[in-house]
Amino acid sequence: MIGTTAVAAEPRTPEWVADAIFYQIFPDRFARSLTVPKPSNLQPWGSTPTYHGYMGGDLVGVVERLDYLCDLGINAIYFTPIFQSASNHRYHTHDYEKVDPMLGGNEALRRLIDAAHGRGIRVVLDGVFNHASRGFFQFHDILENGADSAYLDWFEVRGFPLHAYSSDHPPNYAAWWNLPALPKFNIRTPAVREFLWETGRRWIEFGIDGWRLDVPNEIDDDSFWREFRRRIKAANPEAYIVGEVWHESQRWLQGDMWDAVMNYLFTRACIGFFIGQDVDRGELDRTVLSAARPLDAAAFSQEIRRMLGLYHPAVNLVMLNLLDSHDMARFVTLARGDTTALRLATVFQMTYVGAPSIFYGDEIGLSGGHDPLNRAAFPWDQARWDLPLFHHFQRLIALRHASPALRRGSFTTLLADAGILAYLRRHQDDTVLVAINTEDRPRAVNISARRQIPDEAELDEVWASNSLKAEAGVFRHVELPARSARIFRAQGLAPASAPPDWP
Amino acid sequence: MIGTTAVAAEPRTPEWVADAIFYQIFPDRFARSLTVPKPSNLQPWGSTPTYHGYMGGDLVGVVERLDYLCDLGINAIYFTPIFQSASNHRYHTHDYEKVDPMLGGNEALRRLIDAAHGRGIRVVLDGVFNHASRGFFQFHDILENGADSAYLDWFEVRGFPLHAYSSDHPPNYAAWWNLPALPKFNIRTPAVREFLWETGRRWIEFGIDGWRLDVPNEIDDDSFWREFRRRIKAANPEAYIVGEVWHESQRWLQGDMWDAVMNYLFTRACIGFFIGQDVDRGELDRTVLSAARPLDAAAFSQEIRRMLGLYHPAVNLVMLNLLDSHDMARFVTLARGDTTALRLATVFQMTYVGAPSIFYGDEIGLSGGHDPLNRAAFPWDQARWDLPLFHHFQRLIALRHASPALRRGSFTTLLADAGILAYLRRHQDDTVLVAINTEDRPRAVNISARRQIPDEAELDEVWASNSLKAEAGVFRHVELPARSARIFRAQGLAPASAPPDWP
Repeated sequence: MIGTTAVAAEPRTPEWVADAIFYQIFPDRFARSLTVPKPSNLQPWGSTPTYHGYMGGDLVGVVERLDYLCDLGINAIYFTPIFQSASNHRYHTHDYEKVDPMLGGNEALRRLIDAAHGRGIRVVLDGVFNHASRGFFQFHDILENGADSAYLDWFEVRGFPLHAYSSDHPPNYAAWWNLPALPKFNIRTPAVREFLWETGRRWIEFGIDGWRLDVPNEIDDDSFWREFRRRIKAANPEAYIVGEVWHESQRWLQGDMWDAVMNYLFTRACIGFFIGQDVDRGELDRTVLSAARPLDAAAFSQEIRRMLGLYHPAVNLVMLNLLDSHDMARFVTLARGDTTALRLATVFQMTYVGAPSIFYGDEIGLSGGHDPLNRAAFPWDQARWDLPLFHHFQRLIALRHASPALRRGSFTTLLADAGILAYLRRHQDDTVLVAINTEDRPRAVNISARRQIPDEAELDEVWASNSLKAEAGVFRHVELPARSARIFRAQGLAPASAPPDWP
Repeated sequence: MIGTTAVAAEPRTPEWVADAIFYQIFPDRFARSLTVPKPSNLQPWGSTPTYHGYMGGDLVGVVERLDYLCDLGINAIYFTPIFQSASNHRYHTHDYEKVDPMLGGNEALRRLIDAAHGRGIRVVLDGVFNHASRGFFQFHDILENGADSAYLDWFEVRGFPLHAYSSDHPPNYAAWWNLPALPKFNIRTPAVREFLWETGRRWIEFGIDGWRLDVPNEIDDDSFWREFRRRIKAANPEAYIVGEVWHESQRWLQGDMWDAVMNYLFTRACIGFFIGQDVDRGELDRTVLSAARPLDAAAFSQEIRRMLGLYHPAVNLVMLNLLDSHDMARFVTLARGDTTALRLATVFQMTYVGAPSIFYGDEIGLSGGHDPLNRAAFPWDQARWDLPLFHHFQRLIALRHASPALRRGSFTTLLADAGILAYLRRHQDDTVLVAINTEDRPRAVNISARRQIPDEAELDEVWASNSLKAEAGVFRHVELPARSARIFRAQGLAPASAPPDWP
């Protein structure tokens, strides 16, 4: 059962992910359809999020908002969990075979996938395979029957009766973070492995485009993940497998397990450079990223180089690059409301190597501290949106879609000086130069791209009528207003004569 | 939502039930297929049943034993619950949409229904609609989220946190018999009503032939049952709806709610007459039938008359007549092992008005006291069977199938004297006379059938070459060995000139 697979020399990752811009949806809070029957006791839409209350978003609501998502420009959705669960975040899975009834059930997912695919939007689900919930059938069987349960070996039980709902005793079974609500699967049991593999395969067959794996490093068993990959890719070779790991992940990204991870190293670096000293330390300390330190451009550039060096280029192209998520304060909140930090970070995210992922609402200025506040209901009243911010996202997304260099190009740092970062992306005849000034004052800088572009190359500024002309490979006196970025692009330039920083 | 339906003058009951002989299967204990994957911790097949242990019977096992059931002669199966449940009896429903995985899942039910229907065998499932289980999704949501649960109105909750797994507190929510494991549905909530009605309808659409309703009298709401009937009959007008009620049930059997009930009044009378003084009082006192008292033939006959008078004849034809079930000691055990009591009672059951129901294993002499002992694994080793008893069942079943009089005929008591009961069943040109001697000594009796049959009528003894000839309507000196029955039959007799006792 436990096979060994030779590590592929070149990891084969899904082509489409290099071209993807993800939108992360927390289903209870994105959109509600009036056509989906709802239970009676819901929090009002837009009220302050609580740990346990539901607001009643659903998948049909997402179908009804696909126009909005197309307008924004994204072409992939990552959903936090959608399976039947007695928690508003649905990480406590009650049934892996059913989409939660409050979300509209399996029929709603069918509609969503068909409608999304019809518009060229991929759908990735959250796979919570490390642990189940207290209501999950096989665990419930142990809870009800004790030592007579048929399913004793599905979990690691240390005594009876189970202390699953006890205020006096810690759980006497393996549980994630020792939380009694989250009994950990006993991954050594063949029936459990088979159940999880088949769950993975079944939904791929249903039509989803990949799995984001919740805390997959806690399933400390490479053979499990190799077989998981084998079954997923057998069902759909282009399915995306992306693990939630907050640190370096070479172990799993050699081509035999996952395709990529959620790039929280990227997040950490962006917090350090684009927010820097002004970060809300209290909020930051509540995340796994609390080690983030202010970075100047040189340190940020060095960290980029380090990150790009961790994985094979085919992996870097499909990393899931996020600025925030449901597991941390929103980026704009970490920046104490300074939207310029979010704007600059988004410029970087949309022009960097790997698939950008936007946490729903970031694009209209939704704020919120750590869980549960980061999970506010999407305000569909446009009067409450930061419309300029939305347009900023929109045009950066459009630019990325238009530019192969941004999606698949090489990456070379041209300038990293105090708060100024400039870099070049090149792919075939497409060239993009990005210059970012994170400082609170305007700067005028010389940016050398010598041997990366022809000495007399001319680039046009995007979204403006300016152009930038090199002199002996150097752009002189490029003006960068405070806390702003400029992007220049050319097509048809002669190839570089020096190798790029990456790949 | 709460409609009123006029009571039908003549209840419309399913035709096929009058011709049915049921076999009641407790799925964990009837038959195991090697083709259904099983969890690891099962009790050995045939070990002493426990409250919480599983033995691993399944529905494919039943498919594999259809030859046996056809050989026995039954043409309908009533299954105690089969939906996903963390209890070996499966009355604690975890999911109403899934057949338990240990039973083979929904696919196994599909196979079973198709195979059974292919042999003319109907399939009736157990509908447990009064209460769910602690693991049932909407209850679990309250358990996990307390006052923030979306589903608060699905149950009658009196405080938080729920005392669902507390050894110190009784349940602070409505529960069947105040058992914390069995939270009672709040039937006033529209979503709950709709859920239960649709559950009923969905499985009828799937192909089952009816519902046995668990403790349906505890859903004290006629409008609920009227709509339930409407939906079931809309899906299949011939579906059978039979309630588990241990007492008089006129309220529900007027044609607008159920078709029939499990006839425990019949059971009680049979215990009183066929077991009588020798009943195991300790076992009897553990049942709802503890009021059963020894009956002589006159009292038994009077009770029959009373029972037949309770309901419309169309209802009596489809009552579910059982001698025992999973909810009481087996009949032979109540009789302290005296199989003659079971044999005689079965003669009566197979020749009486209404559909006989055999609790699996009774036919081969399986014994067992009150729950859990009455739920032993079926011993498939024939060396352990009471084969003569099996043949007794077999020929009585065959006789009932052959005789319209036994299934649909009138009923007239001819003789009720001390331990002797004789009665006549007539339907069109089919006439059957049954004479039963429950006494421990042989008797020779005169049985008058005057005006019920022609004065000089001649009847042939079934399974023998004897015949019985009336003299002026009286059969003289009919010899009845101790603890035995004789059955006589004629075809083509002239109609009776006097009305029968029933209908």
